[in-house]
Amino acid sequence: MFKLSKKNPGAAPGLEHDEIERLPSETGQVNVTCIDYGPAEIAIRDIDHLEDFLDHHRPEWAVVRWINVAGLSNMRIIHALATKYDLHPLAVEDVLHLSQRPKVESYGGGGEGDMQARLFIVTHALQLQGERLHSEQVSIFLGHRTVLTFQETPGDVWDPIRQRLKTKGSRLRNNDASFLVYSLLDANIDRCFPILEHFGDRAEELDILILEESQRNVISDIHQLKRDLLLMRRNLWPMREVVSTLQRESHECVSDTTRVYLRDLYDHVIQIIDIIEIYREITSDLTETHMSAVSNRMNEIMKVLTMIGTIFIPLTFLAGVYGMNFRHLPELDQVWAYPAFWAVCLIVAGVMVVWFRRRRWM
Amino acid sequence: MFKLSKKNPGAAPGLEHDEIERLPSETGQVNVTCIDYGPAEIAIRDIDHLEDFLDHHRPEWAVVRWINVAGLSNMRIIHALATKYDLHPLAVEDVLHLSQRPKVESYGGGGEGDMQARLFIVTHALQLQGERLHSEQVSIFLGHRTVLTFQETPGDVWDPIRQRLKTKGSRLRNNDASFLVYSLLDANIDRCFPILEHFGDRAEELDILILEESQRNVISDIHQLKRDLLLMRRNLWPMREVVSTLQRESHECVSDTTRVYLRDLYDHVIQIIDIIEIYREITSDLTETHMSAVSNRMNEIMKVLTMIGTIFIPLTFLAGVYGMNFRHLPELDQVWAYPAFWAVCLIVAGVMVVWFRRRRWM
Amino acid sequence: MFKLSKKNPGAAPGLEHDEIERLPSETGQVNVTCIDYGPAEIAIRDIDHLEDFLDHHRPEWAVVRWINVAGLSNMRIIHALATKYDLHPLAVEDVLHLSQRPKVESYGGGGEGDMQARLFIVTHALQLQGERLHSEQVSIFLGHRTVLTFQETPGDVWDPIRQRLKTKGSRLRNNDASFLVYSLLDANIDRCFPILEHFGDRAEELDILILEESQRNVISDIHQLKRDLLLMRRNLWPMREVVSTLQRESHECVSDTTRVYLRDLYDHVIQIIDIIEIYREITSDLTETHMSAVSNRMNEIMKVLTMIGTIFIPLTFLAGVYGMNFRHLPELDQVWAYPAFWAVCLIVAGVMVVWFRRRRWM
Amino acid sequence: MFKLSKKNPGAAPGLEHDEIERLPSETGQVNVTCIDYGPAEIAIRDIDHLEDFLDHHRPEWAVVRWINVAGLSNMRIIHALATKYDLHPLAVEDVLHLSQRPKVESYGGGGEGDMQARLFIVTHALQLQGERLHSEQVSIFLGHRTVLTFQETPGDVWDPIRQRLKTKGSRLRNNDASFLVYSLLDANIDRCFPILEHFGDRAEELDILILEESQRNVISDIHQLKRDLLLMRRNLWPMREVVSTLQRESHECVSDTTRVYLRDLYDHVIQIIDIIEIYREITSDLTETHMSAVSNRMNEIMKVLTMIGTIFIPLTFLAGVYGMNFRHLPELDQVWAYPAFWAVCLIVAGVMVVWFRRRRWM
Amino acid sequence: MFKLSKKNPGAAPGLEHDEIERLPSETGQVNVTCIDYGPAEIAIRDIDHLEDFLDHHRPEWAVVRWINVAGLSNMRIIHALATKYDLHPLAVEDVLHLSQRPKVESYGGGGEGDMQARLFIVTHALQLQGERLHSEQVSIFLGHRTVLTFQETPGDVWDPIRQRLKTKGSRLRNNDASFLVYSLLDANIDRCFPILEHFGDRAEELDILILEESQRNVISDIHQLKRDLLLMRRNLWPMREVVSTLQRESHECVSDTTRVYLRDLYDHVIQIIDIIEIYREITSDLTETHMSAVSNRMNEIMKVLTMIGTIFIPLTFLAGVYGMNFRHLPELDQVWAYPAFWAVCLIVAGVMVVWFRRRRWM
Repeated sequence: MFKLSKKNPGAAPGLEHDEIERLPSETGQVNVTCIDYGPAEIAIRDIDHLEDFLDHHRPEWAVVRWINVAGLSNMRIIHALATKYDLHPLAVEDVLHLSQRPKVESYGGGGEGDMQARLFIVTHALQLQGERLHSEQVSIFLGHRTVLTFQETPGDVWDPIRQRLKTKGSRLRNNDASFLVYSLLDANIDRCFPILEHFGDRAEELDILILEESQRNVISDIHQLKRDLLLMRRNLWPMREVVSTLQRESHECVSDTTRVYLRDLYDHVIQIIDIIEIYREITSDLTETHMSAVSNRMNEIMKVLTMIGTIFIPLTFLAGVYGMNFRHLPELDQVWAYPAFWAVCLIVAGVMVVWFRRRRWM
Repeated sequence: MFKLSKKNPGAAPGLEHDEIERLPSETGQVNVTCIDYGPAEIAIRDIDHLEDFLDHHRPEWAVVRWINVAGLSNMRIIHALATKYDLHPLAVEDVLHLSQRPKVESYGGGGEGDMQARLFIVTHALQLQGERLHSEQVSIFLGHRTVLTFQETPGDVWDPIRQRLKTKGSRLRNNDASFLVYSLLDANIDRCFPILEHFGDRAEELDILILEESQRNVISDIHQLKRDLLLMRRNLWPMREVVSTLQRESHECVSDTTRVYLRDLYDHVIQIIDIIEIYREITSDLTETHMSAVSNRMNEIMKVLTMIGTIFIPLTFLAGVYGMNFRHLPELDQVWAYPAFWAVCLIVAGVMVVWFRRRRWM
Repeated sequence: MFKLSKKNPGAAPGLEHDEIERLPSETGQVNVTCIDYGPAEIAIRDIDHLEDFLDHHRPEWAVVRWINVAGLSNMRIIHALATKYDLHPLAVEDVLHLSQRPKVESYGGGGEGDMQARLFIVTHALQLQGERLHSEQVSIFLGHRTVLTFQETPGDVWDPIRQRLKTKGSRLRNNDASFLVYSLLDANIDRCFPILEHFGDRAEELDILILEESQRNVISDIHQLKRDLLLMRRNLWPMREVVSTLQRESHECVSDTTRVYLRDLYDHVIQIIDIIEIYREITSDLTETHMSAVSNRMNEIMKVLTMIGTIFIPLTFLAGVYGMNFRHLPELDQVWAYPAFWAVCLIVAGVMVVWFRRRRWM
Repeated sequence: MFKLSKKNPGAAPGLEHDEIERLPSETGQVNVTCIDYGPAEIAIRDIDHLEDFLDHHRPEWAVVRWINVAGLSNMRIIHALATKYDLHPLAVEDVLHLSQRPKVESYGGGGEGDMQARLFIVTHALQLQGERLHSEQVSIFLGHRTVLTFQETPGDVWDPIRQRLKTKGSRLRNNDASFLVYSLLDANIDRCFPILEHFGDRAEELDILILEESQRNVISDIHQLKRDLLLMRRNLWPMREVVSTLQRESHECVSDTTRVYLRDLYDHVIQIIDIIEIYREITSDLTETHMSAVSNRMNEIMKVLTMIGTIFIPLTFLAGVYGMNFRHLPELDQVWAYPAFWAVCLIVAGVMVVWFRRRRWM
Repeated sequence: MFKLSKKNPGAAPGLEHDEIERLPSETGQVNVTCIDYGPAEIAIRDIDHLEDFLDHHRPEWAVVRWINVAGLSNMRIIHALATKYDLHPLAVEDVLHLSQRPKVESYGGGGEGDMQARLFIVTHALQLQGERLHSEQVSIFLGHRTVLTFQETPGDVWDPIRQRLKTKGSRLRNNDASFLVYSLLDANIDRCFPILEHFGDRAEELDILILEESQRNVISDIHQLKRDLLLMRRNLWPMREVVSTLQRESHECVSDTTRVYLRDLYDHVIQIIDIIEIYREITSDLTETHMSAVSNRMNEIMKVLTMIGTIFIPLTFLAGVYGMNFRHLPELDQVWAYPAFWAVCLIVAGVMVVWFRRRRWM
């Protein structure tokens, strides 16, 4: 259920810049994109040779530089960025060891001028893949004029934001780096709403399924839903802290404008957590409903069994009596005996049925 | 179960004033009412052409202007008000995207003089429609001398308040804008008491229903009640924070008189939350009672089955024995055998019944 | 279960002094008693004409004046007191609208000299009426030298306190108004101990009842007890806050001597809440025990059924076999066949019984 | 379950010194011991005439005087001490009304010089009497150089401490009065560890009992254990507060040395509470295991019943068919019919058994 | 389940240095290792004669001296260290009495210069031994330049750290004593991740086991897992406090560099606690799934029983009827009677099956 960090117990904490390069580099796909933008201009580049690129100065008009690394398998790239921006060994380790808890930490750095004070944010992008909830770690470094982001796998999560960046005059374009980070977090959080809607639908479906017919795997489905909600809560709960810290504690990299928007983001997080809690209660009720349905069904079956038994067992006994071979069994010789037997049977059955109806078993 | 906000993940947060007009405008009914009042005079107007109206100055005697917009489908109206009173883009977005969590936020504005410092309050009006609980979002802007309110649909929720405004000398008339906002919130909260009473009745009905007879859909009814209580709690719980913030944190738009009344309102909210929690516990007990009733009923049925079985199975065996065709079966030839058989049957049945009574199964 | 406040949603909050008189006045019994006392003297008077009485000055020796109104149906009386002591409209409304949550509030007043700073306390007097818990609202106004109390119905709750007041030299007599209020609250809280004792007895009775025999209505009794505990907790929980506020926050009407006694009262409240919580856990366990007892009983019945069935069904089959009319059924002709049949039956039954015993079903 | 305080509702709070003597004095055994000690000397005396004794001054070398009263039935003794050391009426009442919640309170006194500032501590000594947990109230007054302790019944709880006092050079002997109080509390808390060990054993026994065989009274035993844990928690939970208050809030009677030791005591209390909570969870699991065991057993019985029924019911039907007396029933006349009947029976039974095995019912 | 401390109730708290030697010394294996290191040099020595060793001064180049005692059975060693470094009696007692709660305490000492201010940390090393979770107490003393550690049994827990110490230029080697302590704690915490992974696997296995087939001992396995999680939580929960205290409260022995790393450690602890809580919820769900599976299985069995019974009981009755010996039973003489009987049987059975299918019992 969880991807846990793979560090050996007792190994040194953090990753020094020179250690990074010695880590095994897989050959998975890694996309590095650099977006320089200011109110007037914007330049989007896919970067193949990161080291060369980092040697050049950024253009004068570029208020913010956003470097996005999608894919964590190429250690050379990580190393180049860690060296250029002097990222803290512990932060680099958190970027590479997935399944961190969402958090925000401030590090004082000593790299390029604008990165001297820096915020490090870990968050998760949630996605539905088929029926299963999938979570991917996203790490963000925020400097004065630079934003570095690291995604586990290349994806189109932030396409709308790139689109908004391209639109001249958009709020995103006219604001600073912290507003970009806010927008990235906001995009992540907003993706939770359709997921919650899907969960709501699933809960409703299960509810109907339970009332229609109790099947073997309903309880597994309910628990699957429960686990997905747990996983979601695990990601959202610490986000509350992260966003609230960003909003409330003043930090030189976060502008006042952004702070107002972060308050709005905080509201969204709270709202999602609220709904998760409600869905968790509803899901618990589903188990109860299921149990009650199963119990009702058994009750029903029991009633039928009892009634059949109660009606026929005495009659079978009676038939057995007149099947006995006693020589002196006077009823056997009477002409009216057989019709009388049937009459008795019908009367007994009738009395039973009336009694059952009175007890509301039928 | 929830109307979730429909914003696309990654879309720009907030609604700029020029964006509002470009939103699709439906042609649903929208009522705009403006009430200007002071201790001496009051003027109530239904407004058709809002732009024209907003160009005129308010009368000298008007201490408070309350503009109520019932219906959110006409974007031209929203735009006009947002421009006139310079509402913050995030607040406008919250007005239009329903199902917000109740909250209070303060924005500094730059519009008409008296709106420069402004409170934005989101709350919900709860209503019973048939058996179902229905919640409608209400957004309130409070300036120094102006109150703007937005309702989802036109309704008569605030008729009593209009009535009180018309009464010369009423406390409402003699007080400022914050007292009007208090009265609106108070009206909303007071509407919860009859709803709670209804829930109390439903719980009592279910209790009786369960004890009378266990039916298939009782458990669904209980869970429906539980969900309604959850929905209510979701709306009331943050109201506690809202009212307590309004009361405790000093804000230039909230007068001291209003603050005393807000303390009273806070008490009401706490009282409602208390009762909701108690009803939630009682509802949980209902499930337990239901389960226990079902279990008792099954027990009862089981007992009958066992007794019938226990009495007749040995007798049937006996009848079977004397129905055997063994040539040498001495009892068959005795004259007293048949009466003796019946005697044995009666004795066995009698012993059984006594034994059952001793074990308290009958 | 709860008496909820009856105010119409949207109606004006609070009751102005002139509004009180216009409320419908019922003709129920209302007793007004005034006790003036000081260390030296005491005067107890039943008052018929309150307005006349209030016009007179209190005697010089009277350190404290305590006016108790038992019964809330006569609005003229309420009005007279509200006017004389300038009670706040919201407080008067709380006095009249029952089922308030226990609370303490401080109002600045402008009436008779010693009432200028005033505490308003709402609490509940709990009583057992037969088996049911009954709660009655008590409202207390505390000024510097005056105490006003309002009870729902006339009763003898405070007789012991009147007795102590009559005793010259008693601590109550030598202390100030706040000590009187403390004594009233103390009397109310002390009344909870016998109620808790009664609940403890009921829980014990139910425990015995369950183990003796599972009856249909045990679960209702348990839930009744649960609800009574809930109701009690609802009243006591906020009392904790009330007493702690009185004790900790300095207020000019509460003397230091009283504060020491309030600490003792606070201990009592905590102790009662503790016991309520423990009883709630025990009551939950009762349900569990009940369910387990029911389940055990069913188990028992099931075992008997199975054993009867398991023993007789094969035997009945055997009897059926030798009741068949095949022409060529060799055993039928043997002389030893019938005794052998019985022998086989006994052996089969014996083996079964041994097997049951080994599986511990018998 | 609880001994609740017996004060009449409305009675005066606290016990004035002159009131104490008028309380009914029973003639139960009361042991009063006085221990005077300093680093150099120690004197232990059993006191018969307390009033005479109190008139004498304590010896010069006595740094600490510890008066222990075991038994609360002699009011003359209580009165003498209350007068001599000027104990507060509310504290005296708490000493006499048992079942107080553990607490610490500071009173300013006016008695003998060293008692002017004084701490009053209520705690409970827990003991296992047979299988039941028994709790006895212990009240402690701590002055600058004097310690008064009151026990419900004479006992040997504090013998080890007296032993340590007799040892010259022991830490206890060289320290002040607050260290003595610490040692008394420590002895009380340490007595909880063997009790917890006993509870752990009981839980383990119950676990084994459940898995071996489900018996009727297991659930009562579990609930008994639960109640004992509840009772223990009720006593320990407030002790946490008591010890933490003693340790953290500076008070002139508590020395810095003692404070370090109190931190250790606090750790012990937390540890015990931890274990109680864990045992409570384990006990809850026991109920679950029990329920599951009962359910499994019923399942087992059900399976046997079903199999017997499923195998024999069709066979019995077949035997019944060939027991019919139709004149034209061709099989009856065949020589091979009877053996064929048995063959069919065996085949049907065999098929059933295979089917059961495939469904894992056997 | 717990090793509780063995001190006799009432015994003196703490262990004075001279008392230690008088404790019973067992002859178990005790390994004492001393590591002196600085950026330039390192010396690792196994020490046989501790007293002699302690008399010598440490080398000039040694920035940190780490003495590790593995095994607590030799009191002479404990005594030598306690005397040399003047350890507090209460701390020494905590080292020897196992099963302490993890905690951090600061003691002012008076021993060797650099130990004057000292932190005492108790933590637990968790290990899986087979399927069971095993916890071993580790006590750490941190001075300015000295670290003392005490383990219950000799083991290889800290081998990776010794390895890192030997590596010249490693961060560990270049930092101070507090960084060493951080590394020791970090190694302990990191060991929890593989354990949690194992628990996750066990939960998954149990989930599969339940769905495949309900066996008698699944519930015990679930509860075993629950207890292991409880034990783990008991150890980790206080670690949160320990690490947070170390990180936040400034102490002269903890350097700023270490503090940054402790923040990272704190994150790990929180992450583990998070996962434990989630596993606890999942484990609770397992019980539910198990109960539901058992219930479903019983339902299934019940259905089969009912169907067999419902189909054959009427048929058996019918066979019984025509086995009766009435002289006048007209059907017996008809040629078509026997085939008709079979036809009726098939029709009845067919109708039943259709009815069952319609009710979804088949």
